[in-house]
Amino acid sequence: MNNKRGTLSFASSGKNSRQTQVFINLVDNDGVPNFLDAQGFVPFARVVDNEKNWAVLDKLNKEYGIQESISGGMVGSVNQAKASFYGEEYLDALFPKLNSGILQIDMKLQTAILAMFASTFSRTSAFTSPLSIRRGIHSSVSYLAAEGGRKSSAVADKDLITKTEKGAQKKKQTKLDTNPPKGTRDFYPEDMRQRTWLFSQWRDVAKTYGFSEYDAPVLESESLYTRKAGEEVTEQLYNFVDKGDRAVALRPEMTPSLARMVMAKKGGLNLPLKWFSIPQCWRYERMTRGRRREHFQWNMDVWGVDGVEAEAELLSAMVDFFERVGLTAQDVGIKVNSRMVIGEVLTELGIPEEKFAATCVLVDKLEKVPIDAIQDDLAELGLDRSVVEKLTEVLTNKSIESIASVLGPESEAVKELSKLMSLCKAYGIDEWILFDASVVRGLAYYTGIVFEAFDRKGELRAIAGGGRYDKLLETFGGDPTPAAGFGFGDAVIIELLKERDVLPSFSSADIDSVVFAMKPELYDDAIAIATKLRKAGQSVDVVLEKKKTKWVFKHADRIQSKYVIIVAPDEFANGEVSVKDLSCGEQTSIKIEELNEWVEKTSS
Amino acid sequence: MNNKRGTLSFASSGKNSRQTQVFINLVDNDGVPNFLDAQGFVPFARVVDNEKNWAVLDKLNKEYGIQESISGGMVGSVNQAKASFYGEEYLDALFPKLNSGILQIDMKLQTAILAMFASTFSRTSAFTSPLSIRRGIHSSVSYLAAEGGRKSSAVADKDLITKTEKGAQKKKQTKLDTNPPKGTRDFYPEDMRQRTWLFSQWRDVAKTYGFSEYDAPVLESESLYTRKAGEEVTEQLYNFVDKGDRAVALRPEMTPSLARMVMAKKGGLNLPLKWFSIPQCWRYERMTRGRRREHFQWNMDVWGVDGVEAEAELLSAMVDFFERVGLTAQDVGIKVNSRMVIGEVLTELGIPEEKFAATCVLVDKLEKVPIDAIQDDLAELGLDRSVVEKLTEVLTNKSIESIASVLGPESEAVKELSKLMSLCKAYGIDEWILFDASVVRGLAYYTGIVFEAFDRKGELRAIAGGGRYDKLLETFGGDPTPAAGFGFGDAVIIELLKERDVLPSFSSADIDSVVFAMKPELYDDAIAIATKLRKAGQSVDVVLEKKKTKWVFKHADRIQSKYVIIVAPDEFANGEVSVKDLSCGEQTSIKIEELNEWVEKTSS
Repeated sequence: MNNKRGTLSFASSGKNSRQTQVFINLVDNDGVPNFLDAQGFVPFARVVDNEKNWAVLDKLNKEYGIQESISGGMVGSVNQAKASFYGEEYLDALFPKLNSGILQIDMKLQTAILAMFASTFSRTSAFTSPLSIRRGIHSSVSYLAAEGGRKSSAVADKDLITKTEKGAQKKKQTKLDTNPPKGTRDFYPEDMRQRTWLFSQWRDVAKTYGFSEYDAPVLESESLYTRKAGEEVTEQLYNFVDKGDRAVALRPEMTPSLARMVMAKKGGLNLPLKWFSIPQCWRYERMTRGRRREHFQWNMDVWGVDGVEAEAELLSAMVDFFERVGLTAQDVGIKVNSRMVIGEVLTELGIPEEKFAATCVLVDKLEKVPIDAIQDDLAELGLDRSVVEKLTEVLTNKSIESIASVLGPESEAVKELSKLMSLCKAYGIDEWILFDASVVRGLAYYTGIVFEAFDRKGELRAIAGGGRYDKLLETFGGDPTPAAGFGFGDAVIIELLKERDVLPSFSSADIDSVVFAMKPELYDDAIAIATKLRKAGQSVDVVLEKKKTKWVFKHADRIQSKYVIIVAPDEFANGEVSVKDLSCGEQTSIKIEELNEWVEKTSS
Repeated sequence: MNNKRGTLSFASSGKNSRQTQVFINLVDNDGVPNFLDAQGFVPFARVVDNEKNWAVLDKLNKEYGIQESISGGMVGSVNQAKASFYGEEYLDALFPKLNSGILQIDMKLQTAILAMFASTFSRTSAFTSPLSIRRGIHSSVSYLAAEGGRKSSAVADKDLITKTEKGAQKKKQTKLDTNPPKGTRDFYPEDMRQRTWLFSQWRDVAKTYGFSEYDAPVLESESLYTRKAGEEVTEQLYNFVDKGDRAVALRPEMTPSLARMVMAKKGGLNLPLKWFSIPQCWRYERMTRGRRREHFQWNMDVWGVDGVEAEAELLSAMVDFFERVGLTAQDVGIKVNSRMVIGEVLTELGIPEEKFAATCVLVDKLEKVPIDAIQDDLAELGLDRSVVEKLTEVLTNKSIESIASVLGPESEAVKELSKLMSLCKAYGIDEWILFDASVVRGLAYYTGIVFEAFDRKGELRAIAGGGRYDKLLETFGGDPTPAAGFGFGDAVIIELLKERDVLPSFSSADIDSVVFAMKPELYDDAIAIATKLRKAGQSVDVVLEKKKTKWVFKHADRIQSKYVIIVAPDEFANGEVSVKDLSCGEQTSIKIEELNEWVEKTSS
């Protein structure tokens, strides 16, 4: 029997050594590597924390009786630690079918290893595992910080086994897969009309507020996103290395591109800047929750204004949109808070300022998971239960008055919130706005006012959200620049409009006339008539092939055309065409020379 | 000294074994692999033709004195052939700095290997080489079919060496790179207004012709593009393997997505189908020619119509667009041809039908390279010089009449072309259209009429192109469906409009009024006035921060606002605002309650 040896190795790539990959590699006893797949590797876990690698390795070795032989060290200039092990038992468990000619990893062992990683690393150092033996047997798991320890990873592992086994059993498809890639959408004409309608509403509102549209490539350098503090957005990044060996990513959000574009002009842009965009944004996420990997997101941002006048303007634009699409303050509310509220409470509780952002993330989590589940995170932040309970007490406040009674009359947070509320009154949008101290928004980069539009019925996820992020440009190495903005996805709003039954119908293709030559010899004349109508401004569908009159009317009905124009021998000889108005069924003859007047009359 | 061994291996992945990767891997004399980079491999060439691998390997070994020891065979279920070699000389040349701790490949050797690949494989089986040792030292080369053999690859190699050396010398950037990724564009507001304007023109024309807009994900499965016959589009594919181990690609064109969407509905769509889209399309290409990696492309397609009426309708839409943007038949022409012309000539010359598509590709090349450069390709097709000379003679024909005299009165090609010309007369677009037998379009999938819009001055590349592709859906496994369409990029047309000086200016942000509160205590009132104007339909820019009146006028001037509305204490007390018309400099007072009438009056 062929004697196999395995290598478990940790390779750190990237200049800051925060990204570590763990590999299992197999080497023949004659020293020739077995290429497990086109990549040659089974990279089975990517972890964020480099220092804890060795502890994990020890655990692994102990638990699986691996006779380890550490031969680590530096190879080349890459900071690389390596460990070889030669345990037959381990390898037999890992690749049970190797000798039978089918490379297939033991999924139980694999998931056990993953579970161990999940429990060994602190939950804030989440990791993704592209389990890949070869194509067809693969899966990917994200261990999210918020989902806590071993318990949730066990759930993930179960999914993983199910998914992976399915993957292994599935035969290679020979027919074209007509689905769009997982988590993405096709837009057939009716879907597209709905999308165009939504985008027009967004654009019209933005234009009304004097905002200018911009765009950036959907593909950006990965470093644009990894620069910002490690957050969910990085974990779920749709990133890859391109053929030129560049680390790139499909944009998860628009703000980093905006920051890049502003910086590229080196102060050459006049502030304040009021810009909007409707980018398609991407994320790579486990698909078990049925969530999509792309969405379109309306972004509106004001840069260079440090007062809450900017936030009020943004809130007003958002409400303007809601009103345009037929929603009322009874359907939608916008929760408003300020990060300064938590800031001031933390100061009072003696928590240092540098823990502010992390505490915000934590507070955001408190809404979703019980306090017990994040005990470790609290300890790491130096917060004990009593502090968190005090914090929770303050954050359940739903009125500025009661917050004011806690923070005192000189509180900057209270002043800021009161001013915003007064501005909202001036805009006439105050019935849409409510104060809610528990809203902090997930992203750590918000520095002041934060807000979140929500379904008053409480059935849907957040509709839109935003706030002030004065520190962002500095994190990119730019000058301090006050900034506020919001993101507004295309998915939840459509759900809401459907649910409230205010979404228009998009079944009609909006065609004015179907033009039809009754005889082939009249086709050229029909074309001339269609051209006349088009030049007059009509949307005209010409029947391009030989069809029966019956088909033409059925077709016109199906596409919901307003008129059918028939070029028939006798009428044409009289310089006329036959026009049927499909709304009433009435059929008349119109002089060809009078068609322009007819178009004008019917379009008004 | 550490004794190193290298492995040169060919691994074939993918079910049809047409994609082969060539790896160089390094193994320590103790059998532990050295991980050259995070990927652990130096995948230095991806070739299309599997059968010729061994020949290349032999050549390599001979040329570099490699003591080869073939130990190929099947490993696992992957069709894999492997060869190990132990030549110190080879390895020393390949990794000269390995022992000094810096892994760096010898670029001369690397490029020599690439050059050998380029000359060994037939030029139609082009390949791409993601040369990757570790990030920072990398480059990518595409050997294009059209550029022919060793000579052009030598040029590429020179570029490669220069580029790679530069890459190696370049220090890791610590500051944010504010450029968009290579070959992509940012759209600042002025650029965006231009893009929006162009897209509106395209959309308006499409709507006038009764076409419906659709869209598909920018990311598609790679297999969607590799299914089509190996052509340039595949060579230049912006493809990658995602975290879920799926082979995906940024779409290079829209038609395959359209085919997928049509097939997904399994006959549930009513034909004929008249659809359009404006997708962003991507390619991965060497950037030496300064060409971009993305562009937007207007697509219009008619499916289900087998007569040239479809092509005539498409040509008319194209001309309609040209006229709308201010171009004339003196600026732009559209060359029209039929693939049937070449088909009939080939039949006459005794060339079998299955060589038709390949001959079309060849004919397309004849315009760009001398006949000597493609002698091998001709031989492979079984065409000798005399045949090609005859073909060339026919293809230089610029009138249907003279083609008719060659092909005879019963020629289907001539009938088809004559009919198309007669239809173009009916549309009134005949002065734009000219027959040119040399136009065949690069893509092999065209089956009938082909056309290409061009700059009459001959200074720019093709503006747009399209034709009939009746076989496409069948190649995807669908039912035979007649289809015709065109693609129209956003780059050349903008160049042309600039060159002809008919491109509008997009410097104005199109703001109606700038609203300004002269005193902070009037800010809320200014907001109320801005809201009033916005509800009346104006685009209003509110001055959100404390500014001097001088700044406000400068700002209004810069953004080219039509009016400045000042809320000043005395006038406001009288129920009035001060309105300055920036087009004439006239300043008047208007009653706040009469602002609606003012908006109506000024907007008409």
